[in-house]
Amino acid sequence: MILLFSDYGAVDIYSGQVRAAIWSHAPGVEIVDLLHTAPNFDIKASAHLLAALVPQFQIACVCLAVVDPGVGSQRDAVVMLADEKWYVGPDNGLLSVVAARASKVELWRITWRPENLSRSFHGRDLFAPIVALIEKGAFPHGKLADTVRLQVALDAGDLAEIIYLDHYGNAMTGLRAGAMEHGYKLHLGPVALPYAPVFSDGPGGQPFWYENSIGLIEIALDRGNAAALLKLKIGDPVR
Amino acid sequence: MILLFSDYGAVDIYSGQVRAAIWSHAPGVEIVDLLHTAPNFDIKASAHLLAALVPQFQIACVCLAVVDPGVGSQRDAVVMLADEKWYVGPDNGLLSVVAARASKVELWRITWRPENLSRSFHGRDLFAPIVALIEKGAFPHGKLADTVRLQVALDAGDLAEIIYLDHYGNAMTGLRAGAMEHGYKLHLGPVALPYAPVFSDGPGGQPFWYENSIGLIEIALDRGNAAALLKLKIGDPVR
Amino acid sequence: MILLFSDYGAVDIYSGQVRAAIWSHAPGVEIVDLLHTAPNFDIKASAHLLAALVPQFQIACVCLAVVDPGVGSQRDAVVMLADEKWYVGPDNGLLSVVAARASKVELWRITWRPENLSRSFHGRDLFAPIVALIEKGAFPHGKLADTVRLQVALDAGDLAEIIYLDHYGNAMTGLRAGAMEHGYKLHLGPVALPYAPVFSDGPGGQPFWYENSIGLIEIALDRGNAAALLKLKIGDPVR
Repeated sequence: MILLFSDYGAVDIYSGQVRAAIWSHAPGVEIVDLLHTAPNFDIKASAHLLAALVPQFQIACVCLAVVDPGVGSQRDAVVMLADEKWYVGPDNGLLSVVAARASKVELWRITWRPENLSRSFHGRDLFAPIVALIEKGAFPHGKLADTVRLQVALDAGDLAEIIYLDHYGNAMTGLRAGAMEHGYKLHLGPVALPYAPVFSDGPGGQPFWYENSIGLIEIALDRGNAAALLKLKIGDPVR
Repeated sequence: MILLFSDYGAVDIYSGQVRAAIWSHAPGVEIVDLLHTAPNFDIKASAHLLAALVPQFQIACVCLAVVDPGVGSQRDAVVMLADEKWYVGPDNGLLSVVAARASKVELWRITWRPENLSRSFHGRDLFAPIVALIEKGAFPHGKLADTVRLQVALDAGDLAEIIYLDHYGNAMTGLRAGAMEHGYKLHLGPVALPYAPVFSDGPGGQPFWYENSIGLIEIALDRGNAAALLKLKIGDPVR
Repeated sequence: MILLFSDYGAVDIYSGQVRAAIWSHAPGVEIVDLLHTAPNFDIKASAHLLAALVPQFQIACVCLAVVDPGVGSQRDAVVMLADEKWYVGPDNGLLSVVAARASKVELWRITWRPENLSRSFHGRDLFAPIVALIEKGAFPHGKLADTVRLQVALDAGDLAEIIYLDHYGNAMTGLRAGAMEHGYKLHLGPVALPYAPVFSDGPGGQPFWYENSIGLIEIALDRGNAAALLKLKIGDPVR
């Protein structure tokens, strides 16, 4: 199964072209639009979101991951095998949180360049063909060179910031919930939020934190929009 | 064919995870994202929208239907066979308008709970595997218990309210158009809207009502945004 | 492969119904949601966008193309074969830029009308079945009549206007970049924008023009929103 993760937009011209490019190389493979609204140009928030979202899947998969404001510059493009899942994308830090948290990682630089390579859309022209070959089981040795580490590695510890706002207005942080005791409060500037197990257990009309479905600490409001109420935006610090 | 109907958002992290979960249990089945922007948390409006949208299909299908603000609480989860179409979702009223209007209904409670069940995302963890089994023709008797009626049943008569705003700014009501004479006007507070057969027949620059493509009375404006012009929102009453 | 191009909205009830209709006639065929946010009701901008987007594909495809504010009126519906790609849609100008730029064009009017034809949703009821038949290789001669030209033909030369704003805030024009020398500036009212090869080469913090991934001149801002900065909207003239 192929998973697409990007900031290409779910309502734009990019994700469909990537899908068509993959199918033109690997007809009929399963492609899931996992997320195309990763925070625009924001490699750090996206790297933490990717690391929460993809490794949890209990299936073999190839993830095309692109948040790539430096497309067309000198940054490398890489293929990564981390804990038996494949990732293809730019070497700009996006894959580095997944890499640092994996127990086993193999890496290759993409040395191949297609005949028609646009300067601004490597997802379609460079990454999609590589993803298609891996998904088909035709690993493209001739298009790759071994490498031992990523060029850009971000801090892979928990990130005490808002990293994603969903359409309900729930705000995900880069903090993994596993280590957080339920008696603790989550601080946002002067505001302290209590824990609740799930929306309908939340304090009536008040925002709270809970462990979301991908293991992160998330700020929510029962049948309401926590992000609007608390004026949250990506990058806001939490404690 | 599997139809997905939810308030998960079309540009968010949820619908892709549901799709991946279904394919992990039933590789390659056809999955249609029918609607992921059902009104957030709004069970009543969504129930009427679902009842207009899904039964019209002339095909066998399994509909995963989730608008579920009470996820993780004590509400039941159900499988329903209504007029030869399958529905899987929460027993919170969402399926009740379809049920009440069907000529033949069978019901089961989902008694199975997966090993990994998040508190907040039953669409992925609980409903998707059941949907996949039904679509594959492997009806999961062992995961279900017979039941005779839904726990929560909404009024299944026409709903004289705005239930959905589309991206053009057309506003659907919960009124079925079949019974409405074309000479009648649709009243929105002090405003009375005339009938027109289709957009290009509308009174120039003025909003009107017409029978939309799923059989509902809808307020529209030729090449314009009726919802913005009339400041319409979901739940507004009509007469 | 089937490509869907429309103003049906990517987060609405229409594109999923089209997909279900196609699969009900041609189970399992590959369908790509190429774009459902063509500018609402805007045939001219959409015609230029379609002509930049679809002919570039290096694959056989059938494109269902619908921007159709006159649906349900007397406008014709057509099938077009242009340079070995199929197009199905209304004869309202939308396909005319593709037609004028193709080296070889064949045309048919759709004379068939399905038993259940809604007045407002020909994409689902009329175009989807035709698209499905063509994709399956069952060309529907009996549902078509030969014709020699489109009823509505727009100017197919470069269009010196903004035709699309993407979610990053990049603004596409209807000018093909091939003929534009890089020393030239792009004028937007009193503003003159320099050329840059790609985002990361742009003048820091200043908007610029570049050749985008579908061959058009596009206005962009490195890691920023050019449309918001310059208050751009579809239809704005450029020089």
